[in-house]
Parts: sequence; C-alpha cells; structure tokens
Amino acid sequence: MSTVVNCASYAEGCRVANIPFEEISEALEVPGQFVWVGLHEPDEALLRQVQKEFGLHDLAVEDALSAHQRPKLEEYGQAIFVVLRTAEQQEGKIAIGETHIFVGPRYVVSVRHGSTLSYAEVRKRCETTPHLLRKGPGFVLYALMDFVVDHYFPIVDALEDRLDTIEEEIFGEKPDRDTVEGLYDLKRDLLTLKRAVSPLVDICNRLMRFDSPIIPDDTRPYFRDVYDHVVRINETIDTLRELVTSALEAKLSLVSVAQSEITKKLAAWAAILAFPTMIAGIYGMNFENIPELHWQHGYLVVMAGMFSVCGFLYWRFKRSGWL
Amino acid sequence: MSTVVNCASYAEGCRVANIPFEEISEALEVPGQFVWVGLHEPDEALLRQVQKEFGLHDLAVEDALSAHQRPKLEEYGQAIFVVLRTAEQQEGKIAIGETHIFVGPRYVVSVRHGSTLSYAEVRKRCETTPHLLRKGPGFVLYALMDFVVDHYFPIVDALEDRLDTIEEEIFGEKPDRDTVEGLYDLKRDLLTLKRAVSPLVDICNRLMRFDSPIIPDDTRPYFRDVYDHVVRINETIDTLRELVTSALEAKLSLVSVAQSEITKKLAAWAAILAFPTMIAGIYGMNFENIPELHWQHGYLVVMAGMFSVCGFLYWRFKRSGWL
Amino acid sequence: MSTVVNCASYAEGCRVANIPFEEISEALEVPGQFVWVGLHEPDEALLRQVQKEFGLHDLAVEDALSAHQRPKLEEYGQAIFVVLRTAEQQEGKIAIGETHIFVGPRYVVSVRHGSTLSYAEVRKRCETTPHLLRKGPGFVLYALMDFVVDHYFPIVDALEDRLDTIEEEIFGEKPDRDTVEGLYDLKRDLLTLKRAVSPLVDICNRLMRFDSPIIPDDTRPYFRDVYDHVVRINETIDTLRELVTSALEAKLSLVSVAQSEITKKLAAWAAILAFPTMIAGIYGMNFENIPELHWQHGYLVVMAGMFSVCGFLYWRFKRSGWL
Amino acid sequence: MSTVVNCASYAEGCRVANIPFEEISEALEVPGQFVWVGLHEPDEALLRQVQKEFGLHDLAVEDALSAHQRPKLEEYGQAIFVVLRTAEQQEGKIAIGETHIFVGPRYVVSVRHGSTLSYAEVRKRCETTPHLLRKGPGFVLYALMDFVVDHYFPIVDALEDRLDTIEEEIFGEKPDRDTVEGLYDLKRDLLTLKRAVSPLVDICNRLMRFDSPIIPDDTRPYFRDVYDHVVRINETIDTLRELVTSALEAKLSLVSVAQSEITKKLAAWAAILAFPTMIAGIYGMNFENIPELHWQHGYLVVMAGMFSVCGFLYWRFKRSGWL
Amino acid sequence: MSTVVNCASYAEGCRVANIPFEEISEALEVPGQFVWVGLHEPDEALLRQVQKEFGLHDLAVEDALSAHQRPKLEEYGQAIFVVLRTAEQQEGKIAIGETHIFVGPRYVVSVRHGSTLSYAEVRKRCETTPHLLRKGPGFVLYALMDFVVDHYFPIVDALEDRLDTIEEEIFGEKPDRDTVEGLYDLKRDLLTLKRAVSPLVDICNRLMRFDSPIIPDDTRPYFRDVYDHVVRINETIDTLRELVTSALEAKLSLVSVAQSEITKKLAAWAAILAFPTMIAGIYGMNFENIPELHWQHGYLVVMAGMFSVCGFLYWRFKRSGWL
Repeated sequence: MSTVVNCASYAEGCRVANIPFEEISEALEVPGQFVWVGLHEPDEALLRQVQKEFGLHDLAVEDALSAHQRPKLEEYGQAIFVVLRTAEQQEGKIAIGETHIFVGPRYVVSVRHGSTLSYAEVRKRCETTPHLLRKGPGFVLYALMDFVVDHYFPIVDALEDRLDTIEEEIFGEKPDRDTVEGLYDLKRDLLTLKRAVSPLVDICNRLMRFDSPIIPDDTRPYFRDVYDHVVRINETIDTLRELVTSALEAKLSLVSVAQSEITKKLAAWAAILAFPTMIAGIYGMNFENIPELHWQHGYLVVMAGMFSVCGFLYWRFKRSGWL
Repeated sequence: MSTVVNCASYAEGCRVANIPFEEISEALEVPGQFVWVGLHEPDEALLRQVQKEFGLHDLAVEDALSAHQRPKLEEYGQAIFVVLRTAEQQEGKIAIGETHIFVGPRYVVSVRHGSTLSYAEVRKRCETTPHLLRKGPGFVLYALMDFVVDHYFPIVDALEDRLDTIEEEIFGEKPDRDTVEGLYDLKRDLLTLKRAVSPLVDICNRLMRFDSPIIPDDTRPYFRDVYDHVVRINETIDTLRELVTSALEAKLSLVSVAQSEITKKLAAWAAILAFPTMIAGIYGMNFENIPELHWQHGYLVVMAGMFSVCGFLYWRFKRSGWL
Repeated sequence: MSTVVNCASYAEGCRVANIPFEEISEALEVPGQFVWVGLHEPDEALLRQVQKEFGLHDLAVEDALSAHQRPKLEEYGQAIFVVLRTAEQQEGKIAIGETHIFVGPRYVVSVRHGSTLSYAEVRKRCETTPHLLRKGPGFVLYALMDFVVDHYFPIVDALEDRLDTIEEEIFGEKPDRDTVEGLYDLKRDLLTLKRAVSPLVDICNRLMRFDSPIIPDDTRPYFRDVYDHVVRINETIDTLRELVTSALEAKLSLVSVAQSEITKKLAAWAAILAFPTMIAGIYGMNFENIPELHWQHGYLVVMAGMFSVCGFLYWRFKRSGWL
Repeated sequence: MSTVVNCASYAEGCRVANIPFEEISEALEVPGQFVWVGLHEPDEALLRQVQKEFGLHDLAVEDALSAHQRPKLEEYGQAIFVVLRTAEQQEGKIAIGETHIFVGPRYVVSVRHGSTLSYAEVRKRCETTPHLLRKGPGFVLYALMDFVVDHYFPIVDALEDRLDTIEEEIFGEKPDRDTVEGLYDLKRDLLTLKRAVSPLVDICNRLMRFDSPIIPDDTRPYFRDVYDHVVRINETIDTLRELVTSALEAKLSLVSVAQSEITKKLAAWAAILAFPTMIAGIYGMNFENIPELHWQHGYLVVMAGMFSVCGFLYWRFKRSGWL
Repeated sequence: MSTVVNCASYAEGCRVANIPFEEISEALEVPGQFVWVGLHEPDEALLRQVQKEFGLHDLAVEDALSAHQRPKLEEYGQAIFVVLRTAEQQEGKIAIGETHIFVGPRYVVSVRHGSTLSYAEVRKRCETTPHLLRKGPGFVLYALMDFVVDHYFPIVDALEDRLDTIEEEIFGEKPDRDTVEGLYDLKRDLLTLKRAVSPLVDICNRLMRFDSPIIPDDTRPYFRDVYDHVVRINETIDTLRELVTSALEAKLSLVSVAQSEITKKLAAWAAILAFPTMIAGIYGMNFENIPELHWQHGYLVVMAGMFSVCGFLYWRFKRSGWL
C-alpha cells in the first residue's frame, strides 16, 4: 500500500515530469515550476521527510499525523495549511474522511485519510485546463476544495430523500417506532455533515480575501464559487434540521391524535357492550318477585330494548366521530 | 420555443430599435446607448454566444447554465451578476424559478428559468417612465428585482391565509390529522420561500452602497425601496414560522386536553354502568339463603337503590365536569 | 372628513399663525420659521400637492400613499422620512395604525393612517414648552415618536395582565381549552406588537447619532430617551414571549399529569368494582354441586369477603395516591 | 422618613465633614474635594433642588423620578447617569428595586428606590480604604455597582437550590402538579433577574473603556472585576434557564412514562379479572342442557381452570413488566 | 500538605536550580532567567507573599484567593492573569477545578485549586524540549493551557459514550425512567463543561493576537493550536447538546407510541372478552320464556357463536395491528 500516490512537477500549466520522491528538491530549483505531491495515509517517517523537503511547520505536520482536526485554514509564514473533511455514502451511512493540504509558492502536498475518493481525478481535470493550472498551486488548492465540496451534494440529496421517505411514513400508514428512530438518525447525520461543512464557509471567505502570492487575484472568483456552494449546502442542512425538528413534533401530535382516536373507540365499544350486560345482569337476579320475568314476551321486549339502546348509542358515537 | 425573448437597444430612456441578436456588437458601439436582452432557458450554444458578445465571466455563465444557484450578487470586474429566485403559486404549491441578470455599463442580460412570469411586463413598465429608464442598466436591474420581489407578496398573503384557516381548524371542530399535516406543509413552504428571500436582504443592502458606475447615486433610493420590501417579507415569514411552531404546540396541548376529556367520560360511564352490574351480579348468586331475595319488594328496593346510586354518580360527575 | 387636520407656522418656539394650506410656500419663505402640517388619511391629490409644496421624494410619497410599510427611517437628501406603527387597544384587540413623518429643515408633515389617536395633543404639549419647540422640526419629530411609543406601554401592560390571568387559569381549576387558545392569541399579539416596536430600536439608535442639521445636538438625549423606552418595551415583549412558550409547555405537562391521575382513578375503581363482580359471577354459576351455595351463612361469608377485599383495595389505592 | 440619607464631603480619600444639604454649593467650591449624597425615594421637590445644585440634566432627573427604567448608562456632557436594578430575597420572592447614580467630576448622588439595602455600608467600606477612595467619584461608582452586583449572588444561589430541589422531586416520588408550577415560577424569576443583570454586561464593558476624567485609568481594572461578576451571573442564569427547559421536558416524558405504566397495570388487571368473569357468565347461563353443570366435579374443574389461566396471565404480565 | 509544589529558575530553556521560595527575588535579578512557581491551594499568607515578590495586582490575587472565577484573561500592566477551569472524571461525575496563572516577563506562577492533576508533568514535558522552553514564560503558559485542554478530550469522549448508551436504551428495550434521568444528567454535565470550555475560545483568540513581549511571535501558532482544540471541543459539546434535546423528544414520541400500542391491546382484549360476557349475561336471565334455553343444542350453538365472534374479532385486530 504505497502511500506516495503521485508526485509530479508542473510548469506553464503542463506536467513536466513524474519525479521520484527523492528528486523533489532538484525539481524545486527549476524556476517557474511547481511540485504537486499526493499522499495517502502516510506514516510518520514519510511525513517527516516531506516536512524536511518543503520546510513545513511542526504543528501542521503533527496535525496531519493525528488526523482528527476540524476543517481549518492556517498560515505558517508563506505557506498555508488547509484541513478539509471529506464525506462519502458507505452502506447507507455517512463516512467522514480527512484531507490535509499544504500549499506553498512552489508546491502542493495533499494528504488523504480514510476516504476512497482518489485525487487522481482532480489532477486529470486540472491537466485538461492548462490555462487555469498555469495560475499555480493556488489553483490546485481550489481544484481540490471544489472536488471535496462537490462530493457533499449527493450526500445532501440522499439526506433530503431520506426526509421525504420519512415524511410519507409520518403522514401515511407506516409503523411508528422506526419513523422516530429514522428522524433521530437523520438529525445525527445532519449534525455530522454540518460539522464538516460549516467551518468551510469561513475558510472560503478568508481565501476570497487572502493577501498572499499563493492566491493570485484572478483565482479569487473560483474560491467565491466554492464559497457559494458551501453556503448553499449549509443552508440546505439548516433547513433540513428545522424540518426534522418539526417532523418530530408533528409525529408526536399525530401519535397523540391516534391515541385519542383509539381511546374514543375503546370507550364507545365499552359503553355499547356494558349496557346490555348490565340489563342482563338485572334480569339474572334471583328475586322471587320480578314481575317482568313472568310476562309472556318479557324476554323479547327486553332484548328489543337492549338492542335499541345499543343501536342508538352506536348511531350517536358514529355521528360524533367516536367510531 | 425561441429562447431570445427580446433584444432591444435604448438611448435617453427610449427604445431605439429592436435589434437582431447578431447586431448587438454594432449597437454597443453607438455611444450613450445600452442593450437589453431577455433570454428564456437558453441552451449552452446561445449562452456562449452571449458570453462572447458581452465578455461575461466564465464562472457566471456556468452558473447561468446549471441554474441551481442561491440568490447572490457577484462582481466580475466592471460587470455584476445577480441571481434571483422567483416564486409563483401553481396549483396550491409554491413553484420556485430562477433568474440570472448580467449587468454591465452598456448592457443588461436577463436569463429566466422555470417560471411563467415574463419580463415583457417589466420592459413595458420601464418604457413608460423614460425619465427613470434614462438612468441606464442599473435602473433596469432595479425594475427586474422589484418585479420579482413584488411577486412574493401574494404568496406570503396566501401562506398567511393558510395559517388562518388552520388556526380555525385547531381551535374549532375540524378533523385532527390534516391539521398537523397542513402545519407541516406550511412550515416547509415557509422555509422554501425563506431560502429564496433571505439572501436578498444582503444583496439589496450591498446594492444600496455599491460603488460602481452601473448603479448611479440617484438609483440608490430605489434599491432601498426593494430592500424594505424584502425585509418586510422576511419578517412576515419569520413571524409565520414562529406561529406555526406555536400552533403545533397548541395543537398538541389541545389533543391532550381532548384525550383527557374522553378518558374522563369513559371513566365516568364505566363507573355508572359497573356499579349496577356488580349489584345485579350479587343478587344473581345462587346461594340458598339470601334473605333479600324473598322479600316482597326486594326487587324494587334494589332497583331503586341501584338507580339512586347511578343518579348520584351521574350528578357528581356532571358537577365536577367529567361528563 | 377633512384630511388636513392642522397646518401652522412656528417661530421661536411659538405658533405664529394657523395658515391655509395654500399659503404654505409663503410661510416657508419667512426666515427662522417652520411649518407643521398634520394630515389624516389623505387622498392622492392632496399628498401630491404636499409633495410639490415641500419637494418630497417620489418613493417616500408612494410609501405614504400605500401605507403598508414597516417602521423605517430614510434619508432623501436633506429631508428624512420616518414610518411608525401606532398601536391601540380596541375591543380587546390590538389595532395597528401607521404614521408617516416627513421632516425637512423648515417643515414637518405627519400623515396619520387608521388610528384614533390625534396628534393635536402632541401639538398642544409642544406649544407649552417653547424653549424646547424652538429646537425646530427635529424636536417635533421627537415629540411625535415619544407620543407613539408612550402609547405602547398600556398595551404591553394589558398583555402582561392577560398572561397573569392565563397563569392563574393554568395552575388553577379553570377550563382547559380556552387557556390554550388564550396563550396562542397572546403569542400572536406579542408578535404583532414586536413587529411594530423592534425596528424602532434601530431607528432611534440612528437618530441618536444622526449627522444632520435637522437633529440638533441638544435634541439627541431626547431620542436616547425614546430609545430607552423602546428597548424596555422590546425586552418586556421578549420576556413575555418566552413565558408564553413556557406556559404552553407547563400546560401540556399539567394536562398529562391530570390525564394520568384520571387514568389512575379509573383503574382503581375498575379494580374495586370488577373484583366483586367476578366473585358474584362465580356464585351465579349453575353447577349442581357448588358446596358453598348450601352453607347456612354462605351468602354472608362471601359478602363479607367481597367487602373486605374491596375495602383493602380502596385502602391500598388511597395510600399509594391513586384515589 | 427623611429622604436625605447622608451627605458628606471627601478630600484625599477621607471624609472631611458631614454637611447639611444646603451647604453643598460651598463644599463644591473647595478644590480637590467631592461631595457624596445618598437619597432614598426622594420627592420631586428634593430632586429638583439636587438638580439645581449639581446642574443635572432634565431627562436624567425625570428618569430618577419615575423609577421604572431599565439598567443603563448615559452621558450628559461631563456627567454620567447610571441606572441599576437591585435584587433581594423577600419572603421567598425576588424583590426588584432601583438605584440611580449621578456621577460628575466633583460629586456622586445615589438615589435608592424600593430596596431595603442601605448604601451606608458601601460608604463605610470606602472610608476604610482611603488610598482607593482618593481616586474620586469614579471609585464610588464602582463601589456602589460592586455592592449591587454582590447582592445578586445569594439570589442566584437560591435559584440554583430551588432547581436542585425540583430536580429531586422530578426524579423522585413527589407530587406532580407542584413540580410543574415550581419550574414555571423558577423560569419567571430567572427572566426577572436576567432583565436586571444582562444590561449590566454592556454597561460595565463601556465603563472599562470610558474616556472621561470621571473614570481614571487605574479604576478600570475594578470595573473589569464587576464585569466579570456580571458575566458569571449572566452565564449561570442562562445555564439555569436551559436546565429549567430540559427539566420541563424531562418531566413531561416521565409523566408519559408513568401514564403508560398505569395503563399497563390497568390493562393487565382488567384482563386477569375479565377472564374468570366471562367463564362464570357462561356457566351462569340457564340453558337446559349444559352437560358440564351436571358433572360431579364440574365446579372444581372450572374453578381450577379459571385460576390456572389467571395465574398464567399474572405470570406473563409480571415477566413482561406490565405488573 | 505543603502548598509550594515546585519553584525553579530557568535560563536558555534549561532548569538552572530548584530555589527555595525565599530566594526568588535574587533569582529574578539574574538576567535572561525566569522563575516558575507552582502552588497548590495556597493560604492567603503565602499568596500575599507571592504577590509582594512579583508585584501582582490586588484584584488578581483576590480572584486567586476566592477561586470561583470564570475562565478569563486579564492584563495588569506588563503581567497577564489567566483563569482556567480544569475538568476530571471522578466516580462517573465531572469534577471541576480551577487554575490561576500569573505570567510576567520573568516569571510564571500557577495556582491549582481542587484538582488531582499535578502540573509536575507539564514541567517535565517542557524540560524535554529546551528549544521551545527557551521562548520563556509565554511558552510555559501555552504548555499549561495545552495540558488543561488535553484533559477535556477524555471527558468529552466519555460524554459521547454516555449518549451512545442512552441512544441504545431509547431505541431498545430498556427501562424508561432511567433513560430520561440519564439524558437530563448528560445535559447538565454538558452545560457544566460548556461553561469551562467556551470562554477559552475567546481567551485563545486574544492570545493569538496579543501584543506583548510575554507572548513572542513564534509562540502564536501554539496558541492557535490550543484554540483549534478548544473550538473542536466546543463544537462537540454543542452537537451533543442538540442530540440530547432530540433524544429527549424522540423518547417522548416513543413513549407515546408505546402508550397507544398498550391502549390498543387493552381495547382489543376488552372487546374480545366483553362480547361473550354480554351474551352469557343474556342467557343467564331468568325470564320464564326464553325459547333458546330449551333447545336441544342451544348451549352448543351459543358457545359456537361466541367463539366465532371472538375469533373473528381476534383476527381483525391482529390484521389491523392492534394485537
């Protein structure tokens, strides 16, 4: 499992050469050229070597080693260090990975942790637009961020679909328990994604105004574009969160409504059955002298009375919506 | 379905000529004249042509192509790019469309997506006030925004009406289930509209202070006017959201109240019927030696006793509000 | 229903003359003098005349005509335009009116819509303090705002009283349904009032720092005074809103508590009555060979047993608080 | 009930003399000396006299007269006017009083309304630290504010204790109704205290940065100290508010849990009793031909059957936690 | 229980000597050297001595004595005073301690209250990195803060575990009551931790931009590192709080769902048992003339009828999910 995924030098927007990791320093000496290194879950030894090669700051490298950072943007002298959280759908769950990007005036190092998305695709895409890649490491940073952010969209869409499904369950005839658990899980996933996305708003905002040779003026609109995407995702997440809360409340109301409908039915049927039972009990008493018992049609009269009352009750309950 | 809806040149606040799309460049060369192009769901080819004609920025054109942007205002050099969301009532639902406006010192291009509202009306209205149209493309931008924002009002009014109807249902005698679903749908529509409207507050605010020849100083009050409308709509939406939440809570309380009234009634009637049933059961026992059974008026006495107790129970429950 | 309520010129803090509407232009020419015009629901013709007389901005006049603005403060060149919402108690409901005030260096025009409160009182009050009225149109603006804001207090007090009443109902023995509706209506009224009051915080804040000859430095503390009142009302409204929400929650808890007490009672009585019914049923069976039936004191023994058990159940339920 | 509580002149941090109220003007003429006047619920005449003596602003004096202000800090030229809300425990309730402080370069006037806490103690404490009192009226202002804020702590502690007690009730075996009312009252008191305390955060913040000879640079840390206390109290109040809300929700859940436990018990016992009742009813029928009735041990068999079923039901309900 | 835990002088990043407390003043005179004193719950006498030695501000020392401060950062001339809250797990509860740190250009004094975590470890760790310790007292401050903040992580992890456990209980088959209490306790602990952590965000932020010789420029990235940790913990706490609230709501919904399932079962069984009871009652009546009683197979027919109806009811209830 080689962890140096790719290492190449670029000049004038074109790949000059794939270079072995050891020759980076020589490549860095060629003027007008920059180096783009892609790492995947590097061990400490490799990362320390990279650090020496490019002169990265101690704290940034330690962050890249431990890989439990929140998304952030940090300046260390001329270099900047960006932490992003990547998100993927894996077996119906959101899997969060991390990417650390070191950008200097002459290099880009991307370090990928726990994600299946390869940045080879980004590299390929950049190489097809040499007039943009010519802008240098700043543009590569944009391309990586854009790639990460673009992968949030299908996840947000999946979350919206899940809410739609749950909504149908709530207002439909589906089982109750799972709906509540589904809403809670959805809330949980939304908060997870929120933690990946929301720091990016601030990061993009800062990149849009960054005063550094790494970010040339004409790349700013590109970061603004990422910013727009991030804000849009963020807004969608917030809307979904509010809807989940409302759905949970609506669910509770509906359960209570259902509960009182059941109680109504229970009460109505209890009344309809309890009345003839009482009457029957009365005529089941063993008093010597109960005149009705000796009537010719006593039984029929009582039965008719009973059923009339039951019928009347049934009709009343039906009319008032209890049955 | 021609997608170039209209294309005309204006000078001194009056329409100079309807020009074919190919002659735009010539029209742009006439000093003191500006061009106003209206497009409807253009395909990429057309949009690329427009881009070449007016020198629009790549990213803006890509946004106009994909048409899933949030409302925003962006500067690209001298030109500005505005994205608006239009809203319409369609068969009781809120249909969201999108409009992209490119404004330069000498041109306005409006691109309409998925909405039935034609901007022909805006054009007509502008042409009736040449002293205002003379202010140039900035005024056209205002006129378009004002038109879009004015169309939010009937929708907000409709949402207010829906809340009024639901309120009557909650505190009235209407069926329960639909009320909850109605509240949830209302919440959803409010959030949809909110996402269309709320970014406009910031956009209008920026236009009010914009330092660009496109927005002459004497058009600022007009943008302030749009700003006021947007803030008002925004406030109404927030008020409605808070009321929907309260209505949902009130609903839940009322369902619980109703539930306990039903339980009270159930309990009261159960008690009233269970008591004589018990007594009847007792005198239905087959013991050889139950003195009361042999009394002359045993039956009447017991019946009288039963009904007295039932009557008493009924009176007590009635008094304490259980029945 | 004359709509020019009053029109007078002032100099050195004293009323110079009541002037007919047509002579305003002459009055404006007298140096050191200002004109104060009070209008009530004017028609368009009149308002257009006023506009010509004082040179008011088109947009402001249109706002004054349509009269569905939110409270705001706008500058048009040297003049300022203020929109206020007035509030009154009318038959237990809050009636919202609107007042538009145009203030220029030499004039004040107040336009009153849909409110019964006349500003004649403000005029009278101002004329009794000539040393303050001398400060000019800015002071008149203050006096009008102070008058409007002072009329919020009795309304807020009435809302507080309503909450007090409802609180007593919640924790007392009053009917349930109306309490919930009362809370909801209270919430609604609070939000209505909030929309009238909260924009004033910002308006007063701006007037306190306004750099314009219309607001002389020594009137600033007066606007700060209005500001304090507005902030206080605003805070009270927010507190009331939070209390209404808590009251709704408390209500729901109490209904649930009541519900479970009823269920307890129902369960307890059902048990107490169902037990002897079961026993009676057993001895009502027609088996040929039930020895107890032939005992001398069988009936008494069974009855005693029944009542002991019922008594025991009653005592246990009583002790554990179910009855 | 004399309302001039105390009036003395100070120089070099020591009390020079108790002076009668009439000789204040003379005392003010002595250089390096300042006057500290303490008033308690003064009538208008006295306050107007004070106003004349120190040249206080009209609006500040009117505020001091009406005494229904929110906490605030206002500058009138060189003087500042501070309004504080004092809080005391009185018979288990929070009693809110008001204190107005006028501070000028050479005087401090404190006006106390509706509180039993005398500021004599503050005066005494100041006089024991002449090196601090020497800093002048600004330090006196600090001492008064510190005194007021220190008296919030026992109240906040009492509120925390009340929450602790209620928590025990909620999760313990106490009566339900009072718990809910207790939580609501607690919320109410927290909001009352919040309204007294929260404006102080801003006031202290401004005093920490105040650019005025009244607040010498070396008193700033003292105001920062008060600021810290206020922020701490504020935070505690917010935490308590959130806990009260959660407690109310927890309460509601627990009531629902209790309710369903009761319903379970009710259902279980109903089933256990209803079954033998049904069987007994069947053998109580008067059909001529019911073979079981003539069996030798019919009665015993049926009774044994009944009790087995009841026992089985009891065991099942017990096992599944319904009993 | 000696309260001077450690006292040593440092130069060039190395420990020069352990010095007795009395010789601090001499050590302070050696140029390029700084003193690091560790105290544990000192009494007033000792703290006053420290104050004299280093010239600490009165208010800071009083804060260190009372030890009920919120986390804060204060400047007193050249020195800074930092208050931190330490947190530990003790017997399943979160125990909050306090640490006060006085930092001057030539000294660090740490005062530890009510915590078992010794700072000896920090000292040891610092001494192993002399190239960092050389940066002086500012680095020691960082090391202490880092140590305190690092100890929040296991606590936050434990809280996350507790939520996971409770979630399983909610959606599993565990007892109800304890779940609610567990959620409430979790909320309480989260709020406690929040109060310890959230002020640190602002403190670290200020330290990152602090303009003082105590914090050399090259220590800033270290404080930014602490800042990142604090923000991350803060975010996790907020996410947990929101999840706890949702869990409480989900719990309530589930209890209601369970309740209505129980009621359904109760109603279904009641109906199934009440019907034959009623029929049996009818044929238990003692009318002389009930034809069915004399039928040959009357009993069997009735029994068959009864059981058919019961079976039918059972089947219907089963199908509609009531049983």
